[in-house]
Amino acid sequence: MRATLMYGAGDVRVEDVPDSAVKLPTDALVRITASCICGSDLWPYASRSPADDPARMGHEFLGVVEDTGREVTTVARGDVVVAAFAISDGTCEFCREGLQTSCDNPQAGFWDDQPLEGAQAEAIRVPLADGTLVKLPVAADDALIPSLLTLADVLGTGHHAAVVGGIGPRTRVTVIGDGAVGLMAVLSASRLGAPQIILMGRHPGRTDLGRQFGATDVVSARGDEGIAQVRELTGGHGSHVVVEAVGTLPAYQQAIGTVRPGGIISRVGVPQYEDGPIGWDSLFRHNIRMAGGPAPVRAYMRELMPDILDGSIDPGKVFDTTIDLKGVPAGYEDMADRKSLKVLITP
Amino acid sequence: MRATLMYGAGDVRVEDVPDSAVKLPTDALVRITASCICGSDLWPYASRSPADDPARMGHEFLGVVEDTGREVTTVARGDVVVAAFAISDGTCEFCREGLQTSCDNPQAGFWDDQPLEGAQAEAIRVPLADGTLVKLPVAADDALIPSLLTLADVLGTGHHAAVVGGIGPRTRVTVIGDGAVGLMAVLSASRLGAPQIILMGRHPGRTDLGRQFGATDVVSARGDEGIAQVRELTGGHGSHVVVEAVGTLPAYQQAIGTVRPGGIISRVGVPQYEDGPIGWDSLFRHNIRMAGGPAPVRAYMRELMPDILDGSIDPGKVFDTTIDLKGVPAGYEDMADRKSLKVLITP
Repeated sequence: MRATLMYGAGDVRVEDVPDSAVKLPTDALVRITASCICGSDLWPYASRSPADDPARMGHEFLGVVEDTGREVTTVARGDVVVAAFAISDGTCEFCREGLQTSCDNPQAGFWDDQPLEGAQAEAIRVPLADGTLVKLPVAADDALIPSLLTLADVLGTGHHAAVVGGIGPRTRVTVIGDGAVGLMAVLSASRLGAPQIILMGRHPGRTDLGRQFGATDVVSARGDEGIAQVRELTGGHGSHVVVEAVGTLPAYQQAIGTVRPGGIISRVGVPQYEDGPIGWDSLFRHNIRMAGGPAPVRAYMRELMPDILDGSIDPGKVFDTTIDLKGVPAGYEDMADRKSLKVLITP
Repeated sequence: MRATLMYGAGDVRVEDVPDSAVKLPTDALVRITASCICGSDLWPYASRSPADDPARMGHEFLGVVEDTGREVTTVARGDVVVAAFAISDGTCEFCREGLQTSCDNPQAGFWDDQPLEGAQAEAIRVPLADGTLVKLPVAADDALIPSLLTLADVLGTGHHAAVVGGIGPRTRVTVIGDGAVGLMAVLSASRLGAPQIILMGRHPGRTDLGRQFGATDVVSARGDEGIAQVRELTGGHGSHVVVEAVGTLPAYQQAIGTVRPGGIISRVGVPQYEDGPIGWDSLFRHNIRMAGGPAPVRAYMRELMPDILDGSIDPGKVFDTTIDLKGVPAGYEDMADRKSLKVLITP
């Protein structure tokens, strides 16, 4: 079968690999009908060492079940399914609490850490299929497929940012970053009733989409100027919730500058830093809280799916480019160059 | 009048200073009948430069109103009152939300930042008296005075740690630090129903008091060994809430090591660091949250006072030494040497 491998920064290839197959009784084999490139895939695309072994890429997919191990009970051959970006068993104490990203099953983990599987491919072996996959009530060529694919990561991640930030009808929100996750955070904040949603981003096509998703204001300035503009829009004190959807230290510093005393910084951009300011001047003085992490999107699928199916939300709009598998290398290049917002792959 | 001045590290003196007096219509003048030395006073006692101007010391006090400005309405001459360690007007949007430590009145702030007033003294000018002072229904020599004095800081701070950590009957808790604030966090966690409270501390007299306040377990080891013991006591995963009541980077790292995935680090020790680990490995991977800051103790007085008055809690036990004003320099020395847990001053 064909699959995507990253050999190093800027070097993505689609090659023949051994066919994926069911190995364990809890596995499923899924023929992938839709996958995509994630903003987080761009971090290794910018920095991966060619000395490392090539990595299988992709952690967002939707497809048709081709085979299942004998212990799999919730999905069957022929089902159209979507997977969470984290493998989880659905039964451990963390899964039961809705934190599937911390599932303590030895087989659990992120697709990105699976050396022999990836979603930017024709097929994929899914461990712990009952915990990881959710059956979809549509055909694999339904018009809603792009929106349903966002359940695998970006929509659930934006929703997670809103949930852990405590966003609701009384919270004013700033979202830092106009990538797919930032835009999904805007959509999620709007869905939960936030009366003010300031989107900080510099790409007019994206911020326009952000306005469609519910952003009430757009701030394109960065740094001190951007902070000053947000403070002006919030009556001087900043936002109750700041969603940091980038992952860089400057974006985190922007969050510190725009959050209101007693407010919360909700981080869903994967931090590209380990140490950062958290002392008296940054967080402590004004009781700023911090939350976030990899989203347990599996926990949110049942809540979000109905809103997609009935047309209340249309998160699939984040896909502005569609390619097939052989177009994947060019897809990475376009996303890295900010020519594409998010690339849909139909193998 | 007599007041405490810190001239530099290890150099505390009690000297004559100009009498405090009402200056603004919203001021009150309080004759101090009980004050104390705070663990946070030990930071400048360890490090203050003798090149700085001497600092007036003390931010916890209780006393009798001697005079009030013409706009003060909630306290009157002769009232016994306790003050919050932060001055606040009680009317701004942050005060109304219960975050009096972020009061945006120009006169608001911490006692520690007042150049001409301090609580380790015979009297004090209290700005914004209506917001800052609370009348007590006891005489100035009541047996409950030590416990009521803890409303000024340490009890409210321990309670704050519990509140922002979301401590309740379903949360297992670890408290790092057996100083007065750590012990008050134990008491507060117990008061809110936490079923397990692990106290990390190395001073048997203090951890024994911690057990009286509700600690279910004591871990005296630090670093990796201490973390391993807490993990064993919590079934391997750590505590839902970790209260960091020290303020050093090692204590924060201990918190990271002992907090459960999806859990929260509640910091009430004033951070003696600005940068710290907050990236993938420390907080992000397992959705660890962080909260805390200077406690809006003013917000908690009405809730906590009845429990002191009816004897449900006895936080005054943290005072193990009582001195008069001239004993203050020795009191600092004893606290710094860990001979005293917390020193009560009756001028």
